[in-house]
This record gives sequence, C-alpha cells and structure tokens, in this order.
Amino acid sequence: MDRHFQRELESLKTTLIKMASMVEENFLLALRAVMEKNIELTHKVIETDKRIDKLELEIDDAVIDLLALQQPVASDLRFILAALKINNDLERIGDHAVNIAEATDILVQYPDAELLEEIPQMAEIARNMLKDSLDSFIQVDPSKARAVLKTDDKIDDLNRQVAHKIIEHVKNNSKTAELGLEISRISRNLERVADLTTNIAEEVIFYIQARVVKHHAEEKDQK
Amino acid sequence: MDRHFQRELESLKTTLIKMASMVEENFLLALRAVMEKNIELTHKVIETDKRIDKLELEIDDAVIDLLALQQPVASDLRFILAALKINNDLERIGDHAVNIAEATDILVQYPDAELLEEIPQMAEIARNMLKDSLDSFIQVDPSKARAVLKTDDKIDDLNRQVAHKIIEHVKNNSKTAELGLEISRISRNLERVADLTTNIAEEVIFYIQARVVKHHAEEKDQK
Repeated sequence: MDRHFQRELESLKTTLIKMASMVEENFLLALRAVMEKNIELTHKVIETDKRIDKLELEIDDAVIDLLALQQPVASDLRFILAALKINNDLERIGDHAVNIAEATDILVQYPDAELLEEIPQMAEIARNMLKDSLDSFIQVDPSKARAVLKTDDKIDDLNRQVAHKIIEHVKNNSKTAELGLEISRISRNLERVADLTTNIAEEVIFYIQARVVKHHAEEKDQK
Repeated sequence: MDRHFQRELESLKTTLIKMASMVEENFLLALRAVMEKNIELTHKVIETDKRIDKLELEIDDAVIDLLALQQPVASDLRFILAALKINNDLERIGDHAVNIAEATDILVQYPDAELLEEIPQMAEIARNMLKDSLDSFIQVDPSKARAVLKTDDKIDDLNRQVAHKIIEHVKNNSKTAELGLEISRISRNLERVADLTTNIAEEVIFYIQARVVKHHAEEKDQK
C-alpha cells in the first residue's frame, strides 16, 4: 500500500473530524441562542456556518482528488465515499443550526415566554446521536451507529408531542400563534438534525460492514 | 475510451432519469392528495416512495461499482459523483413528497377548509425548478441550472407569506391552530423541495463546468 495514499486518507479523516467538531459546537451555540434569547449568539452561529460551508467544499475537493489520483478500491473506496456523504450531512446539520438560531429573532419579542421542556430534551438527544454516530466512525465501531438508529424514534415522539402541545396552547390563547409556529419550527429542525445523524450512522455501518442498512428493516418514520 | 465503460455511464444516466421521473410524479401525486384531500392518493405516494428508496440504493451500488472497477478520471469522475449526489437529493425530495401527502390525514378533518392560494403556486414553482434542474443535467445545459438558482428566492418569499397569513388567521380564529400548523408544514416541505432542486442545479453546474457555485456569490437565504 502506497504510504502517500495512506497519509492522504488520514488527512481526510482528520479534516472530517474538524468539520464534525465545528458543526457540533455551532449546533450547541444555536441552542444557547434560543434558550437565552441572545441574538448576538445567533450572529455568531451564522458567521461560523460560513466557515463550515467553506470546509465542506474543501473536503469535497479532497475526495475528488483522492478518487481521481489514487483510484482506490474496496474498503478505501467505501471509506472515501462515506466521508463524502458524512461531509454533506454535517453541512446540512449546520444549516439546521442556523435555522434554529434564527428563531431568536422572533423569541426576543416574547421575553416572558418559556420554551417547552421538550426542546432541550430533543436537543440533548440529537446532540448525543451526533456524537455517537461520529464516534462510531472514528472508532470504527458499528455498535454505536446501530444504537443511533434506534434512538431516532424518541425524537419523533417528542416532535409530535411538541406539535400537540402547541396546538392546544394556541387554541386556548390565539395570541401565541406566532410563538407557537416558531417553537414548532425549532422542534422540526431538531428532528431533522436527528434524522441526519441517522444518515451518518447508516454511512458508518456501510463503510464498516459493507452492508446497506438504509431503507431496510428499520424503515424510519418519515416526518 | 472503453466502450463497455461508456455503456455503463449511459446506463447510469438512464436509471437516474427514471429515478427523477418517479420522484417528480410522486411529488405531483402528493400535491393532488392534499389539494383533493384524498387519503387513497396518500397511500399510493407512500407505496411509490418505497420503490424510490430501493432505486436510490441500486444507483448508489452502480456508482460504487463504476468507481471501483473503472477508476474514472476527469469529466467522467465528475459526472459519476454528480449522479451520486443528485440521486441522494432526489430521494430526499421523495421523502418531502411523503411528508406533504401525509398532511392529508389532518386535512380530511377539515372538509370545508381551503388551502392557501400560495400552496399550489409554490408547488408549481418547485415542480418547474425540479424539471429545469434535471433538464439541464440531461441536456448538459448549465444556463437552465443557473436559472433554477435564481428562482429559489420566490419560494422563500411565498413560504414567509404563508407563515404570516397563518399567524394572522390563527390569531383571529384559534380553532384553526391545528390546520394552520399543518399548512405551514406543507409550505415548508415545498420550500425544502425547492432547496433540494437548487442542490441539484449546483451539482449539474459542477459537473458541466467543474466550477463550484455552492455557498458562493448567490449565498442562499437559509430558511
């Protein structure tokens, strides 16, 4: 095996881990922005997302170079394609972090309103799913990725619970319509983040076991 | 150039076009399901989506085989990677079609309610964006793809307009909370479909011009 090629694979892995940490941190910052109704943090999230977008393109370029110059096969090829897809999923999670942070624009108009308790619960679960799916990639451990796939239902349940609560709330107090719509937007973005972590988990399993788990037994509930 | 390889590239293109037609038809069926409040059509959409998911995996497999066995470079490599990403975007559009169709479950409980006029407008625009982005891929014509990127703002505006109307409506009649939340869900799914067509347009331009347009000048409004 070409040592230069091995170094390039390692370098791709390192850059992807950097991308993952940036996305995870920005996601947590977005959560803080809405929980603290802090518009300054929202601006920071938007700024960081631009750097995340740039890094996504760099990783894409690295992948294309690796494929073109090294023409990898077997498990190296699977690793590189998994990196390409995980990279894309991470960038999308970054976009959802921006969507979540932008809710602050509306939330600051309701200084006394509290977010539903389900929101931080969902955020905590989504964050752990993200962490576990990436750990399973780095540690080449498919069991963690499989655990992520099982957790997705919890988020879906909480998302439904939030929608239900908001409807009841708005029925009793129509002035909360705008706020309700915004909290439902946060909830759905959290649900989408969780969904993207299951994509990552599926990619990891594909890379490790060359077994396609997508769209199979677990058939995710689409929301 | 290897003739066998050329045939395989053609076959990949044909399968991707088949995938695109299935997704487009299912998207239109989902729209009919909600406009006509017809739950039978919703079931059809869900059934077809399973076939779409299966086809996505077949295309993914074909791409991996092509990369592993043919080790393509230059524009062939770019074409194959674009196909991989477009395939993924199409599958996601399929998921949004299911989300839209599932709104029928709620809508049938409000037999007299009409959808906002913006919904069919958004659907029409999203559908044309999908069609144009795929045409530009098939016809190797980047100008259509560029036009798609410019259209995305219209959908974002309409989505905001829908949110605004719903909030006003629910404020005046709190009983419409559930219905309002559901219509906003349809609107957001349409907005996401449009967003995915811009992804496809960007991939097409990348394939044709080897120029990355993502995250650049046009910096899409993230919603």
